[in-house]
This record gives sequence, C-alpha cells and structure tokens, in this order.
Amino acid sequence: MADVLIGGSKQAARAYSFDEVAIAPSRRTRNTEDVSTTWSIDAYTFQTPILAAPMDSVVSPASAIELARLGVLASLNLEGLWARYADPIAHLEDIAAGYEGTVIGNMQSLYADAPVDSDLIAQRIEEMKEAGIVVSVAVSPARTAQPAPIAAKAGADIIVIRGTTVSAEHVGSDGNELNLKEFIHELDVPVIVGGCSTRQAALHLMRTGAAGVLVGFGGGASHTTSDVIGVRVPMATAVAEVAAARRDYLDESGGRYVHVIADGSMGTSGDVVKAFACGADAAMVGSIFARASDAPGRGAHWGAEAWHPTLPRGERQLMEQVGTFAEVLHGPSYHADGTANIVGALRKAMATTGYSDLKEFQRVDMVITS
Amino acid sequence: MADVLIGGSKQAARAYSFDEVAIAPSRRTRNTEDVSTTWSIDAYTFQTPILAAPMDSVVSPASAIELARLGVLASLNLEGLWARYADPIAHLEDIAAGYEGTVIGNMQSLYADAPVDSDLIAQRIEEMKEAGIVVSVAVSPARTAQPAPIAAKAGADIIVIRGTTVSAEHVGSDGNELNLKEFIHELDVPVIVGGCSTRQAALHLMRTGAAGVLVGFGGGASHTTSDVIGVRVPMATAVAEVAAARRDYLDESGGRYVHVIADGSMGTSGDVVKAFACGADAAMVGSIFARASDAPGRGAHWGAEAWHPTLPRGERQLMEQVGTFAEVLHGPSYHADGTANIVGALRKAMATTGYSDLKEFQRVDMVITS
Amino acid sequence: MADVLIGGSKQAARAYSFDEVAIAPSRRTRNTEDVSTTWSIDAYTFQTPILAAPMDSVVSPASAIELARLGVLASLNLEGLWARYADPIAHLEDIAAGYEGTVIGNMQSLYADAPVDSDLIAQRIEEMKEAGIVVSVAVSPARTAQPAPIAAKAGADIIVIRGTTVSAEHVGSDGNELNLKEFIHELDVPVIVGGCSTRQAALHLMRTGAAGVLVGFGGGASHTTSDVIGVRVPMATAVAEVAAARRDYLDESGGRYVHVIADGSMGTSGDVVKAFACGADAAMVGSIFARASDAPGRGAHWGAEAWHPTLPRGERQLMEQVGTFAEVLHGPSYHADGTANIVGALRKAMATTGYSDLKEFQRVDMVITS
Amino acid sequence: MADVLIGGSKQAARAYSFDEVAIAPSRRTRNTEDVSTTWSIDAYTFQTPILAAPMDSVVSPASAIELARLGVLASLNLEGLWARYADPIAHLEDIAAGYEGTVIGNMQSLYADAPVDSDLIAQRIEEMKEAGIVVSVAVSPARTAQPAPIAAKAGADIIVIRGTTVSAEHVGSDGNELNLKEFIHELDVPVIVGGCSTRQAALHLMRTGAAGVLVGFGGGASHTTSDVIGVRVPMATAVAEVAAARRDYLDESGGRYVHVIADGSMGTSGDVVKAFACGADAAMVGSIFARASDAPGRGAHWGAEAWHPTLPRGERQLMEQVGTFAEVLHGPSYHADGTANIVGALRKAMATTGYSDLKEFQRVDMVITS
Repeated sequence: MADVLIGGSKQAARAYSFDEVAIAPSRRTRNTEDVSTTWSIDAYTFQTPILAAPMDSVVSPASAIELARLGVLASLNLEGLWARYADPIAHLEDIAAGYEGTVIGNMQSLYADAPVDSDLIAQRIEEMKEAGIVVSVAVSPARTAQPAPIAAKAGADIIVIRGTTVSAEHVGSDGNELNLKEFIHELDVPVIVGGCSTRQAALHLMRTGAAGVLVGFGGGASHTTSDVIGVRVPMATAVAEVAAARRDYLDESGGRYVHVIADGSMGTSGDVVKAFACGADAAMVGSIFARASDAPGRGAHWGAEAWHPTLPRGERQLMEQVGTFAEVLHGPSYHADGTANIVGALRKAMATTGYSDLKEFQRVDMVITS
Repeated sequence: MADVLIGGSKQAARAYSFDEVAIAPSRRTRNTEDVSTTWSIDAYTFQTPILAAPMDSVVSPASAIELARLGVLASLNLEGLWARYADPIAHLEDIAAGYEGTVIGNMQSLYADAPVDSDLIAQRIEEMKEAGIVVSVAVSPARTAQPAPIAAKAGADIIVIRGTTVSAEHVGSDGNELNLKEFIHELDVPVIVGGCSTRQAALHLMRTGAAGVLVGFGGGASHTTSDVIGVRVPMATAVAEVAAARRDYLDESGGRYVHVIADGSMGTSGDVVKAFACGADAAMVGSIFARASDAPGRGAHWGAEAWHPTLPRGERQLMEQVGTFAEVLHGPSYHADGTANIVGALRKAMATTGYSDLKEFQRVDMVITS
Repeated sequence: MADVLIGGSKQAARAYSFDEVAIAPSRRTRNTEDVSTTWSIDAYTFQTPILAAPMDSVVSPASAIELARLGVLASLNLEGLWARYADPIAHLEDIAAGYEGTVIGNMQSLYADAPVDSDLIAQRIEEMKEAGIVVSVAVSPARTAQPAPIAAKAGADIIVIRGTTVSAEHVGSDGNELNLKEFIHELDVPVIVGGCSTRQAALHLMRTGAAGVLVGFGGGASHTTSDVIGVRVPMATAVAEVAAARRDYLDESGGRYVHVIADGSMGTSGDVVKAFACGADAAMVGSIFARASDAPGRGAHWGAEAWHPTLPRGERQLMEQVGTFAEVLHGPSYHADGTANIVGALRKAMATTGYSDLKEFQRVDMVITS
Repeated sequence: MADVLIGGSKQAARAYSFDEVAIAPSRRTRNTEDVSTTWSIDAYTFQTPILAAPMDSVVSPASAIELARLGVLASLNLEGLWARYADPIAHLEDIAAGYEGTVIGNMQSLYADAPVDSDLIAQRIEEMKEAGIVVSVAVSPARTAQPAPIAAKAGADIIVIRGTTVSAEHVGSDGNELNLKEFIHELDVPVIVGGCSTRQAALHLMRTGAAGVLVGFGGGASHTTSDVIGVRVPMATAVAEVAAARRDYLDESGGRYVHVIADGSMGTSGDVVKAFACGADAAMVGSIFARASDAPGRGAHWGAEAWHPTLPRGERQLMEQVGTFAEVLHGPSYHADGTANIVGALRKAMATTGYSDLKEFQRVDMVITS
C-alpha cells in the first residue's frame, strides 16, 4: 500500500474497494467448458469456491444441505436462531415480515431472550451429518471456547471462528482470554478464522494453525461498521494484502498454504470475480444467497451485528428474490445485474481472460477505474 | 498506463472513462466548413467516421440502406432477428412494448426459438446489395466459421467479427478452434474484428490481417459486463492503448495501417469526439442511433448480451427518441444534450481546436477532469 | 499542469473545477470593513470586481443601468433580443413562461426571425449613455467586424468579444477572417476578449492588445458544451493557467497588465471567491444575476448557445429568485446557499484569510478537496 | 500536506474529509471493558472526551447539567437565546415548528430583537454553578472583550472563544482589536479558542496561552461556509495538521500540552472515532446531540451562522430524534447508523484496534478510501 499524507505526520495508505477496480482481458481467451472452479481445503474438495456465510438469513440445516449439493460449503451459526430455538421458523417469518422502524429492537430481544443451547447445537450437527454433507459451523471469537469443542465432538468437520475483527493477540485484563494457537491445536478439526484486513494481522492469524483466514469484516449489504466505529479497509486492497501474507507465511512455514477467503462486500458476481483476481482462494458470501427464493431469510438479510444488544452495526435488509439457490449459483439467469449464475459468471470471466484454474486467475491483470 | 498498488504485490493501471477526460482548446480555431470528417477503410470511403453497431435495435436491412445514404457504415447482425425470422417486425414491436420485469426471459426465448437461417442471410445481403450500398455484416467469434463464408459468397463487402472480448489466441480443448489469421486470409473481404481493450490483445488481433479492430466491449448503455463478470477497461484508456498498438504494428508490419474503431460506451456526441481525441479512426455507436425515430428498435435498445441463454449481461433499454437518423447524424438538433447532430458536434470540436482532419485531431490536447 | 497518462502515448493534465478546491485560512484575520473590492480596468474603476454576462436573461439597457449603480460592469449583447426587436419584453415573457419540452425550437425561431438591426444597436447604446454609466457591449467573434465599429461610433466605452472559444489565430479558407490584433488596434475603445482556457491561447489573446481576457466557456448553469462537443477545461485550473499567462505577458510586454476575467461556472458566491483565489482580477457571472427578481429573464436563464440554429449547446434554465440585484450583490441575504450578498461573501472570505485587496488575495492558500 | 498543481503556479495541498478516510485494524484486539475514554484538561477531568457545542439547539443551562452528569463538557453560548431572553422556551418551540422557507429571516429577527443581557449571563452561570457542574461558556471573538470577564467573574470555569475562523493576529484599522494573548493571560480561567484549520494558524493560537484549540469551522450539518465564502479545510487533514502544531508547540514551549479539539463535521460516531485517530484529544459535536429527544432544539439544529444579519452561512436543520442524551452517549442503541451510543462506539473502535487509551489511539493505522 502506497502511503499518502493526510496531514501533519499522519500517513495513510490508499485502499481500493471492488467498485474501484476491474479486470482487464489479456491477449488470450478460452472456452468456458475448459475452466475449473474446483476448490479444496484440508481433506475436502468442493465443486465451487463459494462459501455461504454463517448468517441466519442464509444458512439453516436444510439450506446447508441443499447448498452442499450445489457445491457450496455453508456454515451454520452456532449462536443463531437454530441454536436458540427448537423451531425458529416462526421467528424467521417475523423478521422477514417486520417493519423497518422497529426491527432492530425486536431482533435484539429475539436473540437475547433465548440463550444458546448445547443440546440444540449437537442436534443441528446431527441433522446435517445425516445428510452426508461436510458439516461446517461458526462461532464468534468471544464465545469460541464453549460451543466449538461441543461442535467438534458432535461431528462438525470444519469450524469457523468469525468476528468483525479477530486477532491472534487478544489482550484482556481478566486473564482468561482465548489463546487461539493452543485452542486450534487442541481442536481436532480444521479451523477457518477471521475477519482480518491487513497483512500483519493475517500473518499472525496464519501462525495460529488455521486452515484458512477470512478477509474483511463479514458483511457489506448488511453491516454499517464503517459508519458506527469508523473501521474499514476496502476489500480489493484487503484481499491483496492478505494474499501477500499467504505468500510470506508460505515461505516462513516452509510450505503451509493457508487459504485466503474473501468474506463479505461482494454483492454481485462481478465482485466475486474481483475477489479471486485480487488473490482470494475462495469467497464467502451472504447477500448473494439471501436473494435466493429458498433462503431461510425469506427475502430478509441480516448479520450478527444487527442484534448486538447495545451497539448494533447492521440492519435487516429486504432483498429482491432472483431465483433458487441452484439458479443463483449455476443459472440459468434471467437477470443482467450479477445476482444470478455466480459460478457461470466466474467461469466466463476466467475464460474471457484465458485462465483455466482459480490459482492462475489470481494473476489476471487489473485496472483502477476511479 | 501508470501502475498503482492495490495491495500486497497486486499492481493495477489507472484507467479513464470518457466521462473523466475532456478536450482542451489550443491557441488556434478554424471554420467548421473547413473541417473534413471523411473516413476510408480498405477500398471504401465514407462521409462520416461513424459506424452503426450490429444490434437489432439499430440495424435492419432498411436502416442500413438509409444510414449508408447518410454516410454511415452499418453492419447487419447475422445472428439477429433478420437472420432468424422471415418477417421479424412483430417481434421488434413486442420487444419495444414489453414490460421491463419479464423482458430478459422473453428475449431469451425469442432468439432461442428460431435458429439462424443461411438462406435468410443470403436474402438480407441481397436486399442491401440491390440498394447499391457497401454491405457490412457481423458475426460472433464463436459462430464465425459458418455464416461468414456464406455472407462473403452472397456479396458482403465488409465482415465484422464482434464479441465482448475477442482474442487472436483462443485456447480450446476440443481442437476445432477458429484460427483467426488463416480464416481472415481465406475470406476474400476485409474484416473488422474485436472487441479488445489492451495494447497486447490489440497487437495480436492486428497481426491476423484484420483491416480494423474494435476497441471496447461493444456496449455501454445496454450492457452490464462489469457488474456480471467484473471485466472492464474504461474507454478513454482502452482507445489510447489500442492506438499505441496501431503505431507499434505500423512499424512492425512495415506500414500496414489497421483502423482503430471505438465500439460502445459513447452515449453522446461529446463521447464520440473524445474517442477520436484518444486516437480512434472511427466510432461504432449503438444507443445514439437507437434514439432515432426511424431506428428498428422503435425506442428500445439491446445487444446480443441481453439474450444470452444462461448468463445475460445486458438489458433492454427504453430510449427517448430525439429525431430522425438524418437529424441524429447531421442535425438540425433541438436538443442540447449531445444526442443529435453528432457529426456537426464533431466538426465543431475540430474547428474549436483548430484541426482540419480526423488524423490530426488525434493529437488534440486533453485534460483529466476527475 | 501535471501530466497523467490516459493510455498509450496520450498524456493529459489533471484539471480542477471550483467544486474540487477550497480556500484555507492563514494565521491572520482582518475586519471586513478594512477590505477593498475595488476593480479598475483601463480608465474605469468599479466598486465591485463583478461583471454581468452579456446574456438576454441578465442584461437589458435598464438592468445595465441598475447594475452600474451597484458597482457592476454589465455588457449588453449586441446580437440579443434588444438588438433584434424594438420591444422584446413580450418575447422575454414568452421564454420565461415557455415549456421545457419545446423551448429550444421556439428560441431558435425567435432569434432567427429577426436580424440584428444597426439602428437598434445605436439606440440601445444611446439609452445607456444617457444614464451616465460606463457602457459596455458584447459581440461574438464571428460577427465582430460589423457591429463593433458601429457600437464604438455610437459611444460604447468597452467592447467585449465573447465566444465559447476565441483564438488569436482563426484559420479560414475564405480569406476574410478577422485579424484580432489589427481590429483591436483600430477600435478606439478597450476590448475584453475570450473565452480561452489554456496558457498558450491566453498569451496569444493578450498579444492582440486586449485590455482583458475572459477565461472559460461563458456558461456553466446554462451550457452543455462538454456533453455536446467534449471540450472543457475545469475552471480552477483554467483561471490559474491564464493567470500564469498574465505574468508571462507582463514580462514579455515590459509591463502591460491584461486583466484575467473568470467567465461562467460560478453558481455561488463561494465559486466567485475561488476564482479570485485562483488568480482572477474580476468575475463575469450570469446565473447569479439571473436569480435576481429584477433580472430581465424573469426567472429564466439562457445563453447564446441555446439558440444556435443547428447545434444548440445550452438550455433555458428556470431559476429560483432570491432577492433584488441589490440584495444579490450587497445583501442582506436571507439564503445560506451562496446565492445572495456576493460581494459581502467576497469581503468575508478576504477578511477571514487576512487579505485587504483583491490582488493580494490571489496569493491565498488553497486545498484540493476531492 | 502534499502539494498538487491546480494550474499555472498555483499549488494546493490535497486535503481529506472524514468520509474519505477509515481506520485499519492492527494485529491486536482488546476487551472494550479495558478501554479508557477519560479526558482531562487543566484541572478538570471528564468521563468522556466529548464536548457539546455552544449552540442553542444543543446547550441550555438544563441540558448542560444533564450532559455534565453523563461525562460531557457542554458550553452555553453567551450570545444565544438564554443570554437574550429571560424565558426563551417559546422561541425555541417556534424555531422547531417554523417553516423552512422563511426560517432564516425569522431567526435573524429573533436574535437581533433582543440584545445580550449581562445580568442574564450571570444568572445562567449561577443556575449551572448551583448544580455543581464544571461551568463552561462560549463567546464569539468579535464580542469576547465584554461578556468573557463578566462570565469569569460570575464563576465560569472554562471559557470558549469560538468563531468560524479565529486568528491570533487579527488586523484592524480601528485600533481597538482584541489582543488574544493579553486577554487570555488576564482572564483567570482556562480558555479554549478556535476554529483554526492549519498548522500555522493553530501554532499561533497555542502561543496565546490557550488550554485548547478548536479545529474546524464549527459546523457541518448546519453550516454552509464552503458554499458561501469558499473557505474549507476538510477535517481529517485539519485535525492532523493541528495535531502536528501541538507537537511543534510542545517542543517550542518546553512541554506545554495544548489540547486539540475537533469541532464539527462529525455527524456519526464513526466520524468522532476518526477525529481521535487523526490526532484529536477531544471532540466537540453539535448535530449528534441535536438528535437527542431531550435537546433544547426539540428536533431542530442551527448554529450562530444561521442568524447572521446580512450573510447567513447556515440553515436550521430538522433532525431525526434517536434517543435520550444518555442513549446517544452511552447506549443502548437501536440504530445502526452511528447516531447513538457514541462513547460505546469509540470504546469498540479502540478495542478492535488494540488500544487502551485515547492518547495511544492517535497512532492507529488509517487508510484513504476514496
């Protein structure tokens, strides 16, 4: 990142969002049929490099099973409604039907009124295991210590530790802070951890033994972290910086490849494509799936920030429904705005620029457009 | 293009759209009467350097004849409705009258239901030949091999091979890829090929023997390639880069001058003027002609991207009609927004900056305005 | 101007509009009462450095007299309605009442139907002379040769030759082009000439013997030159460049000071202030005066570009009326948007930054704000 | 500030607003409970580093007492309604209920009709003293000489001299200009003075003996100084520049620490956070408090610029009410847009980036986002 002077002695790096960059074709093109979008992490291989974000609007046990069938790794939020209520369907319907004006207060109550239930966690994992899918669950860094081992014991295959900003070095005065490195070492399953958005923070997360790191603040359509706390690193720069940390760590570790997973701020297939072009190995998306007609959100979309009891940093969004999960992922699309056939769009972008796999595509030429 | 750092080791060039640049007057002015806008390619000379894009909303056999009379080279799309239906008028009326909400699905069906008919291709060319005009037809790169030779045999004078991104080096696993260089060599008519948007890609296209290359992705008003697949090079930069390739190739080939034809993203006469200022020899426009009251689109405008069966990257636009083809091209204009008297505006720009022909005008001073 | 690469070998300078710059206070402040806004050109001194643009919406013989009383040099357009019609009041009312949709066509007819009348020119000058004001009239460069000498003979004190782009070296094939230098030499009155927008063009205009040069394209609110012909130099840069030409010419001529008059693109008092900060000696404004309740436009505003017979580059604007000419210029203001008390705002800006006269104020610190 | 060329020889520094910068997380995080937001100036310590701007819409004697209870230093404007009217409640209600169209004229009258009353000043201070709070009052630089000593005598603890632009070197021709340095020396209470926005101006203000300097023009939501007089330094740059002056002066004075207080242009908690990140010690806000349901403005917000008799540079804004003063400051919040729980947001930002006190947080990494 090139330094610019804000004033006095305050330097800052110019950082770019996906909106400000684009992909430039090269001198070669390729057939879309010859393009591979396969993604592998640890022992698992997926047809698509797309992950579904652990948000109640996107991932339920049922939708996780359907998404797995379509080649997507979906993570169930172990602090969400499915871990709090035996049958949250009525609550999901309420949120989708609720009025804009009072929705934050209502959601704060809905999540606060029912604590996370360990038995429900085990039951949800069981439901997904029975379908024969790779089971992934997500926890927040503050609560990781309790539910994660329960989930691992119940048979979760991948655990995601996901917060707005997660560091390898959390300082606390109460002395019982989570040591991520020890914790990940003791868990018997691969861990994906984040968000992070800078090279140094990512490098430290990689050193904890994580199989993948999440880049970004986990939200775009649904969160307002920048307005509320002023913290933001635009995603094109964040992904490129963390991809540089992957290379640094590859060298430092003597060859351990930690996956860089762009998380959030990708509202269209064009944004997803740009994440790979900036160096991502995979992309975790929320709003794109929330637009599916079979998404649990029923046309609504929100993240964990929206029900924070004292400092909400997100809002419930109402989304236009554009097709089924299958159409959103693999088409056919009846929309020209990048909301459907996400994988088809990725294949088309790779073919247009002459690349045949995702790793090569990370080298594609880019331009700054504003 | 000057390199900027997105983050990590990812460099990108800052690229400019026509909106971000403008022309600066010099110390000399000239009479508009003393300005020439003549354009010649291969054996053909045209009164204006404006081409009509091969879109069903703009070019029919009848409109091609009218546009030729006005000094414009119009290309009929050999994969459009006139090559699929004996009488497509009712279908054109349906598209213009159709509702926004369902139009993509309807258009997908309309084009998919009737295959391209070789006899119709020959018939359309015949209709245009009879009017004594220079006949130009367009094909997409994927289908070039079949209709292009038919068209050449039927008497087409110029063949346009036009796609979103066309490369001289298309890699395929099925072994029956088109070798553009051989193909162009064997065709007996001059070929214009594109789109391309970078210096290297353009240089390779020039080496195929093409008489002209199209710069851009063929669409602006009507396509959403950037949202859907993330691929975009803003046009001012794209044209300037390809103009540099023309100079490179002129030297390398010992003097063969390949025409640089800006294609799309020109919604006003101001944009057309800027294309020439950036180095274009000619400008292929769509939406400008779609606003003519005698355009086949009847107030609607769309490109081939809009009826892609699985990944549409464009939408039917409804356009305000501003005058006849004659008024759109040569005035008089009753609009102050750059939608009419395009050639008059070009003459005025050249006169204002003191240039008398288009080749000289490529040297005009420019400024970056944002 | 610093050069930026658009692409290939096409360089361009980054140019700034008034919107993109602002004035920075220094360490000193001053009383507004101690600030002088006096402006002198040739033998004439004015209370304010504000000129009224020769537009029919702003300057009539009557408004010129009222504006002179308020310290403003107003120029009557000798090709406008007052030089075409004995009593144009009904036509002015029609324009103000006319509908947006058809107004360009109606205005084209209104101006085309009545030719400029030499007797009316003399009569209008007489009307203004009788009021004892400094009489200024304006002509376009194409027609300068005829009406200017008539006006000079009739007693005009200052002649303005004003067009979108005026050069000292107009090239024509018909051999009867105006030689500006000879023409200005032969006229017995001081001449203000423009627009120009670059250092070289301004320097050549200064060499014609003009007392002042107009910077810009003469319009902002009311013209669309950039959309129509792609020609534009944002005003902050244009004024600063021409101010540099003034310095160059001062040296080259051994001390002749040619006034730099910003012309157009100043919609608020803030813009006017920035023009002086960029180096202007005076500011010619249109829309600011068109908002006066006693302006001849009666709430409408348009320039000569709007009635061009074949290529109109402007539109009639309807303006909110904010006060009388007196209030617009000297307050009191009841508006907080920079549309009233223009001179008071200029005094306040000078006092806030510690400057006591306009020449010093040209050195004030500025910042780029976007 | 890095210099950019506007044109000719006119240089300008690129300056950034809070909207154009953001905070980047580092490799460390912290518990929000371990974060301190305590702020001390002179002998006084406050729970929060937030000051309430001396605007009638925000600070009344009653609201000052309530805000003090919440940890906020609120300054009563000694030229506002409470110093002009024995009971201004009806006037405050009128302003809140008044129509947009005529509100400036009505406010000009309201303030002009009743002069500032010395007895009322003493009475207001007495009311606040009785509540046992740290009493702060504000005066404008032009009128400082009279009311400030009265206020000091009446027991004010802190005096704020606040104007759009205040310099240490005010030049006047009438010879009775305020010598700030002598004046502050003679007053027996600590003085906060501003606005300033550049390094040099701030350094001179620091040399007057002030305990703190205000950075900015005192307004954002409610003022239009930039439109009216063209003067503006975007706040991120202004704060960083004045923070550099603090360091310069610390060295020059052998250790006197003058507080840098960002004043205005902070509409959300995110903006407040960025002010500290740019180097501020405290933040004076207006519109944020005007959104409180118990603010004196009753949903309206305006500054002293709005009732200037001849050149108003602000407007009465109608604000959405988002909660009580207590909720606006400390939550809980039911809004995700940065308008409530300002101090909670600041704590969260510090914790997210691993800082435990405000002085350290001034070193946090930032990025330029546009």
